[in-house]
Amino acid sequence: MPDETVAMSERYRRGLAKLEEIDGDEGDRVLAGLRAIAPDFATYVVEFPFGDILSRPGLDLRTRELATVAALTAMATAPAQLRVHIQAALNVGATPEEILEVVMQMAVFAGFPAALNGLAAVKEVFAARNARDEPTP
Amino acid sequence: MPDETVAMSERYRRGLAKLEEIDGDEGDRVLAGLRAIAPDFATYVVEFPFGDILSRPGLDLRTRELATVAALTAMATAPAQLRVHIQAALNVGATPEEILEVVMQMAVFAGFPAALNGLAAVKEVFAARNARDEPTP
Amino acid sequence: MPDETVAMSERYRRGLAKLEEIDGDEGDRVLAGLRAIAPDFATYVVEFPFGDILSRPGLDLRTRELATVAALTAMATAPAQLRVHIQAALNVGATPEEILEVVMQMAVFAGFPAALNGLAAVKEVFAARNARDEPTP
Amino acid sequence: MPDETVAMSERYRRGLAKLEEIDGDEGDRVLAGLRAIAPDFATYVVEFPFGDILSRPGLDLRTRELATVAALTAMATAPAQLRVHIQAALNVGATPEEILEVVMQMAVFAGFPAALNGLAAVKEVFAARNARDEPTP
Amino acid sequence: MPDETVAMSERYRRGLAKLEEIDGDEGDRVLAGLRAIAPDFATYVVEFPFGDILSRPGLDLRTRELATVAALTAMATAPAQLRVHIQAALNVGATPEEILEVVMQMAVFAGFPAALNGLAAVKEVFAARNARDEPTP
Amino acid sequence: MPDETVAMSERYRRGLAKLEEIDGDEGDRVLAGLRAIAPDFATYVVEFPFGDILSRPGLDLRTRELATVAALTAMATAPAQLRVHIQAALNVGATPEEILEVVMQMAVFAGFPAALNGLAAVKEVFAARNARDEPTP
Repeated sequence: MPDETVAMSERYRRGLAKLEEIDGDEGDRVLAGLRAIAPDFATYVVEFPFGDILSRPGLDLRTRELATVAALTAMATAPAQLRVHIQAALNVGATPEEILEVVMQMAVFAGFPAALNGLAAVKEVFAARNARDEPTP
Repeated sequence: MPDETVAMSERYRRGLAKLEEIDGDEGDRVLAGLRAIAPDFATYVVEFPFGDILSRPGLDLRTRELATVAALTAMATAPAQLRVHIQAALNVGATPEEILEVVMQMAVFAGFPAALNGLAAVKEVFAARNARDEPTP
Repeated sequence: MPDETVAMSERYRRGLAKLEEIDGDEGDRVLAGLRAIAPDFATYVVEFPFGDILSRPGLDLRTRELATVAALTAMATAPAQLRVHIQAALNVGATPEEILEVVMQMAVFAGFPAALNGLAAVKEVFAARNARDEPTP
Repeated sequence: MPDETVAMSERYRRGLAKLEEIDGDEGDRVLAGLRAIAPDFATYVVEFPFGDILSRPGLDLRTRELATVAALTAMATAPAQLRVHIQAALNVGATPEEILEVVMQMAVFAGFPAALNGLAAVKEVFAARNARDEPTP
Repeated sequence: MPDETVAMSERYRRGLAKLEEIDGDEGDRVLAGLRAIAPDFATYVVEFPFGDILSRPGLDLRTRELATVAALTAMATAPAQLRVHIQAALNVGATPEEILEVVMQMAVFAGFPAALNGLAAVKEVFAARNARDEPTP
Repeated sequence: MPDETVAMSERYRRGLAKLEEIDGDEGDRVLAGLRAIAPDFATYVVEFPFGDILSRPGLDLRTRELATVAALTAMATAPAQLRVHIQAALNVGATPEEILEVVMQMAVFAGFPAALNGLAAVKEVFAARNARDEPTP
C-alpha cells in the first residue's frame, strides 16, 4: 500500500516537525525510549497528538501549551509529562510568569495540593534551565 | 474589627467586578443559589477565585478561561462548571473556534471520552446562545 | 460447607445491622436494586463495607461518615452515593453544620467545582428531609 | 496532496469498518452528532481509536472491549461512553456474565461507588436490549 | 490602601497561627520553599485554607484533619500532602488508630490500591516520628 | 465463635491460594509489609479481592488481569500496583504483546500521558524479568 506509506509519512513528517518545534531534543529522547518498548506507539505519538492535533490552525501554540499545563496540573497524575510541557510552554513563547499564573489558578479548580505539586514541577524545570545556562526570560 | 470589614469589602468588591466581567448575570444566579445553603462560601467564591486569582495581572482573562476549559474538560468531573466556563471564555474574548480547539486537544491528554463530553458541553452552550439571539461570533 | 454458611451469615448479619443503622430504609432500596442485576454483589456490599469495615471499633460512625462525605465530595465521581452518605452522616449523629463544613473544606483539597457540587448535593438532601417533615436539626 | 487523501481514506475506511463491527448503528449516531459541532474530530475518532488502535492485531476485540469497560467503570467520569462500550462488548462476543464480572471486579481497584454505578449502567443497557427484543444471551 | 494591609494581616495572622497549630515547623518549611518560586501563593495558602477554612468554628480540627486524610487517600494524587496531613492529624489529637481506620475505610470508596498507598504513607510518617523519638501514642 | 473462624479460614485459604496463583512470592512480600502496619487489612486483602472477587468463576484470570492492567493504567494513580498486575497478567497467561496492546489502548480512553506511564511500567517489569533470567515469552 505505497500511497498510505507516503501519506503516513506526510502526517509523520508534519508531526515530527511540530514535536521538534515544541519539545526540541527532549522529544527525540522520549521517542527513542518509547521505540524500545512499543515502536508503533512512538509513531502514533508523532502522528496524532503532534501531526493531527497540535498542528491544527485555530489556536496558537503558546495557548495550546498553557492549556496543557493547566490540564496536567489539574489531573495531577502525570508529573513527568507536566515537566515536559512546562518546558514546551517556554519553548513556544510562554513566559515563566504566565506559566506560574496558570499553575496557581489550578488551586481554584483542582485544589491546593494539585497547584503545589504543579509549582514544584515549575521550580524544577526553571532550575534545570538555569543550570544549563538557559536562564528563563 | 472595622479595618478587616473594609478590607474584605475591597477583595470582595474586586472579586464581584471580576465575576461580573467574566460571568455576567450567570454569576449572580450561582451566588444566589449558594447563599441559600452556605452564605460564607458564596463570599469565599467571590474573594478567592475572583478577587485574588482571576484578578491577578500576568495572564490575560482569555487565556485564563481557555486554561480553565482545558482543565475542566480533562478532569471531567464538573460538567455544569465546564458549561459556565465555556460561556465565560466567550464573554472574555475567546472565539468559538479557540474553545473547540482546546476541548479537542484534551483527547490527547485525558482521552476521547473526556473530549467528547467536552464537545457536548460546547454544543449545548453555543445552542443556548443562539436561542437567546446571541449568535456565537 | 455448613460452617461457612453460618459464618457468612455472621458477617452478613453484622453488616445488615450496620447498614440499617447507617442508611435506614435507603439501604434496603439500594440492595433490592442491586439484587436484580448482581445478587452476589449485594451480598458483598453488606459483608465487606458494612460487615467488615464500618463495623470496626476504633473510629466512631459519625467521623466515619464525615470522612466518607469528604472523600466522595473530593472524588466528585459518585454524586448519588454522596447524597446517600450525606443522609447517612445525619443518621449517625453528624449535624448539618458539620457536613457543610466538611464539604466546604474540600474546596481547599479538590477545588471549588468539587465543593460547589458537594454543596448542591447537601442542599438536595436537606430539602428532601424537610419535605418529609424530618427537618434537619 | 492526493496521496494523503487516499491514505487517510485507507485509515478512515478501516476505522469505519471497525466502528461498524463494534458499535453498529450507535456509531453512526455518535459520529453524526459530532459532525454537527466538530467535523474534524469525527474524522479523528474514526481514524485513531478505531482505524489505528482497535484495528490492531495482537488482542481480540472481546478482550479489548472488556478492558475498556473496566477502565471506564474505574475512571467513573464518562457514564455515556461506558454504556456504549457495554453494548459494544456484547456486540463483539462478550457474555453478559463476563461484563458483570469485570464491573464487579472494579470494586477492588476503584471502590464500591464506581462498581455500583457501573452495575447501574449494565442494568440500563441490558434492559434496553430486552426492550428491543434483543434479549441478552 | 492601609486598611486592606491591616486586614490581610488579620487573615494572614489568623492563618499563620492555625498553620503553626496544625503543622508545626513543617508548615514553615513548606512556606519557605513556596516563597522561593511563588511568594503570592505562599500568602494565599496561609490566608485561604488556614485563615479562612481551617479556622472556621463548626467542626473540630481533629475531624477536619481526618476528613482531609480521607480525601487525599481517596484522590491518590498528592502523596506528599497526604503525609503532611497524616502528621497534622496526629498533631491535632487524632490517634494513630483513628488515622489507620480512616485510611483502611477508603478501600471501600476508592479501592484497595488507594488504601494500600495510604497505609504506606501512614507507615512512613509513624516511622519518622519514632526515629525522632516522638513515638506515636 | 468457632464457626466463623473456620469459615473465615475458608475464604482466607481460598484467597491465599488465588494470591499465590496470581502473584507468586510478590504477594507474600506485600502481605508481610502490610501486616506490620495494619494486620487486619492484610486479612481483608486476602479475603475480599482474592477470596471473593478474583476467585469467582465466570471470567478467566487472564482477562481479569488484563482488565486490571487497563483500569490501573487509566486511573494512573497507583504505579506500584500497576507493576504488580503487569507481572500478575504474565503469571496467569497473558502474553507481553497482549499487555502492551491493553496499555496502548488506554491512550484512547485516558489520554497519552496515562498510556506512556503505563508503557514505562511495562518496560520496567519486562526488564526485571529478563534480569532474573525469566525472559518474557
